[in-house]
Order: sequence, then C-alpha cells, then structure tokens
Amino acid sequence: MSRFIDELAQSWKRSGSLLCIGLDPELERFPKQFAGQASPIFQFNKAIIDATAHLVCAYKPQFAHYAAYEAEDQLERTIQYIHTNYPGLPVILDAKRGDIGSTAARYAIEAFERYAADAVTVNPYLGGDSLEPFLAYEDRGVIILCRTSNAGATDLQDLESGGRKIYQLVAERTVRLWNRRGNCLLVVGATCPEELADVRQIVGNMPLLVPGVGAQGGNIADAVVRGQTAEGTGLIISASRSILYASSGEDFAKRARAEAGKLSAAINAHRHPGPSASS
Amino acid sequence: MSRFIDELAQSWKRSGSLLCIGLDPELERFPKQFAGQASPIFQFNKAIIDATAHLVCAYKPQFAHYAAYEAEDQLERTIQYIHTNYPGLPVILDAKRGDIGSTAARYAIEAFERYAADAVTVNPYLGGDSLEPFLAYEDRGVIILCRTSNAGATDLQDLESGGRKIYQLVAERTVRLWNRRGNCLLVVGATCPEELADVRQIVGNMPLLVPGVGAQGGNIADAVVRGQTAEGTGLIISASRSILYASSGEDFAKRARAEAGKLSAAINAHRHPGPSASS
Repeated sequence: MSRFIDELAQSWKRSGSLLCIGLDPELERFPKQFAGQASPIFQFNKAIIDATAHLVCAYKPQFAHYAAYEAEDQLERTIQYIHTNYPGLPVILDAKRGDIGSTAARYAIEAFERYAADAVTVNPYLGGDSLEPFLAYEDRGVIILCRTSNAGATDLQDLESGGRKIYQLVAERTVRLWNRRGNCLLVVGATCPEELADVRQIVGNMPLLVPGVGAQGGNIADAVVRGQTAEGTGLIISASRSILYASSGEDFAKRARAEAGKLSAAINAHRHPGPSASS
Repeated sequence: MSRFIDELAQSWKRSGSLLCIGLDPELERFPKQFAGQASPIFQFNKAIIDATAHLVCAYKPQFAHYAAYEAEDQLERTIQYIHTNYPGLPVILDAKRGDIGSTAARYAIEAFERYAADAVTVNPYLGGDSLEPFLAYEDRGVIILCRTSNAGATDLQDLESGGRKIYQLVAERTVRLWNRRGNCLLVVGATCPEELADVRQIVGNMPLLVPGVGAQGGNIADAVVRGQTAEGTGLIISASRSILYASSGEDFAKRARAEAGKLSAAINAHRHPGPSASS
C-alpha cells in the first residue's frame, strides 16, 4: 500500500471525517477585507484551513483557479502551509493532467516535486502509458477520472463497448493493470450514485474521490450509502463553493467551519460504524 | 470561420509550410551558453523562433515543460515575442485541459487571456459541456484530442461502441455538435496513418494537428498523403525534439533551421499542388 493510501486511512480515522474541502479561489467572492492585501488567495486559504483542518480528511486545491490568476506561488504556499502546520493531512492537486509519456513525466514533476502534492488527478483518455510517469511515484496517489459529476459525462464515459461502459472499463483496467503499486484512486461524481455503487463493486476497497455534493447538488445520503466500503470509509467527498463562500462577510471562516461541520455530520449519519467504532 | 482558422490558412499560404515547431524546453539539452543566463528558456526559444519563423505555419509550446521549471513567465514572454515580432503566426498552447464547466472556464482564461494563445489543446473525456467554455472564444482554435500518437492510445480511443471506435465518435461529435462556431480542430497522431485517413474522411476540411513525426518516428509521407485535404493543406505537423536539439553546440539555431527546412521540404514533397500552385 502506498504512503498516500496509508496517510489517507489515518486521516479518515483521526478526523472522523470523509469530507475534503476544495480550495478553489474566486477573488470576486472573497470577503472585502482581502481586497488590496498581498497574496489574498494564500491568506484566504490559510484562514479557511485553520478554521476547518480538524473537520476534513484532505484538501484539494484546483489548479485552474490559481493559473487563471497567475498565482502559482500562492498555490505552492498553500500546500506548504498545510504540510507544515497539519502534517499527515493529505493534499490532492486537482489538475486532471493527461499527455504522452515524456510530457506526462514533466507534469508528474510539476505535481509531486514543484507543488509537493500528495496526490494528483489525471485523465485516462491517452491510456496506460500516459499514466505510468505518475504511477511511478509509488508513495503518492494517482486519482484517475472514471465517471465525472457533470452532465456531459455521458457523452463518452457512458458509451458501451462489448457490453461494458467506458467508465466501467476504466475502473476494471485500473484494478487489473494500473494499480500494480497500490497507489490508484478513481474519481466518481456524487451526482451519479448508481455509477458510484457500480464502481465500488468493481474496485473493492480502493478509495474514491467524490465531487459533486454542495453547489453541484449531488445527494449526500445516496453517495455515502452507495460508495462507502464495509468499514464505512473509502470515500473522499469533496465540496468547495458551498463551504468557501458560505459567507462573504468578516465571519467567512466561522461560517465555513459551520458548513464543513454540518456536511461532515450529514455524511457520517449514513456511514457504517466500522470495526473500530463497533469494537 | 473563426479568426484562428483563417489565420492558419493564411499562415500555410505565406510560409508554404505545414510544419509546426513544438517549443518544449529541456534545460539539460540546451547548449552550454545558456547555463547561468537569466530566463534561459525564453532566450533559447527566441533564438529558435528567429531562426525558423519563415519555415513554419505555427508554434506549439507544451505547458508541462514550463510548469516543471516554474517558468510560466518565460512561457508568457515566448508567446508575446511571437505575437509582437511575427504577427499572424499562430501560437498553439498544448495543455490538454479538461474539467467540468465552471473550472474549464478558468482554464480558458488561463490559455486565451493570460497566455494569449491563439489555440489550445483540450481533452474530450468529460464531454461537450466541458469543452463549451473554450468553444465560446469564437476567435480562437479549440484542438480536441481524437486519436493520439502514443502506444497507449489504443486503450480507450480504439474501443468500439455501436460499430464505431471512440476516436471516430469524437470526430463525429466534433463535426456534428462541437464545431457550431467553426473553431474546432482535432489531434491525430502521425504514428497512426490509417486512423488519420479515417478522421480526414469524417471531418472534411477541418484542420488536424498531427504530432508524432520526428522523435516519435511517425512516417511523413504516410501522414501527408493520408491526412491532407484536396487543396494540399489541412495539417499542422508538429515536431519538437528532433529540431530543437539537432545540435547542442553553438550552432544549435542554425542546425534547427536546417532540420526544420528539411522536414518542411519532406512534407511538401507529398502535398497536392493545391489550387493556387496549379492555376
């Protein structure tokens, strides 16, 4: 088992939470106090992290939200801040990279060395050799897009080939071929609970990253009931906007904490107790 | 027809070339003279561009090669340098982005506003709604991965669904749905000439970005004969390493020019004369 998978399991246990907060800065939604500050994105993230770190199993900064602001430095600082102040709390860089091998190797350097992410999201369209440079980092997590949370996911991912849908084939290949080093995870949206149940069936205990609750409207009960393992874990349930922008006033961090606490409790209400709770 | 497609057609005509140079910096392969210089990547690119601009229809910087070096600023400067000194010569940002709509909108800002790219490569795995924020930039080009040049391309892209392969379905959807504004192109590797002929059949005159000649070993004659339109254009044939690193000595720019000239001539040897040449 890779270091990442192990750290994630410890993080689930320590926090008692399956919630992951997506750190997706949108300057226009920041409280007024950040206008004109140096490094407003980092400062905003820092306040959110300090208010919520005990309530989450992971953080997930989304790359595009930094790149669009030319704020790679604040992305670096955010990840470093988490590693320094909350050691053992995994950081997932959501970048959905996908390119041929020699280029994928550069993307792996970007994610794992430059940004020091514990895991990164990747796109399987280019096939196994495009994933290999990421998989070669045995201690990190490689989170492969399987069945995404958006409406257009049906366009390619739900096509049938030989009686199996493309997303099912991605899940099967991950188990059979790509997870040799035990460092794979899959992305399955909370907006498609049947597909989530289906993927859980295929992958056994492999952890799943589940976006789509919160602003995207996925049902929490369905996602937890269909997606969890027998131990009541196996899920990283990610929400961003509904937590980060719960308030645009001075109380934003307090309100984010309240929202994260509510969401984590709502998730836990549907979890199996697990072996530690029942012993 | 979008401004990008129009500019590309003019660039084919002006240069008499279908060649595109991929600007993929690898510091360890740079000539010694760049060691210890400020902004070595930009300086290297500038020398390559000045030596080859009359021989190419486009340049294609690959994002990961900059991100891995924390050199976004030098990517910006490179693109700006081309726009300023060679107006009308299109720049394709090869970034293979793909994410849900709200995030894709941020990636579109990154590519088209921050980097001022004329076109960007994108991944279709998330479906039509993930492409829409890019397509909404009507004047730019959106280059959708169809059948890639790597061995692993067969893993998903060649799967059959309803008697059609996934890459064929991507090509068909592009023509039928995604090219409403006339600003789509497709990526098809030179390493798979039969698939290239097949895609050409599906998409009519739509321009195709064709990587895989040069270091990846795709056959030029096959790619041109199978991929060109009746007018002898329709292709952006991209090579990177075989040109950029033709020499690691002081003569690197001169050798890159020679290599680019040779490759462009080899391509032209297999082109239909086209209406202007035959009139």
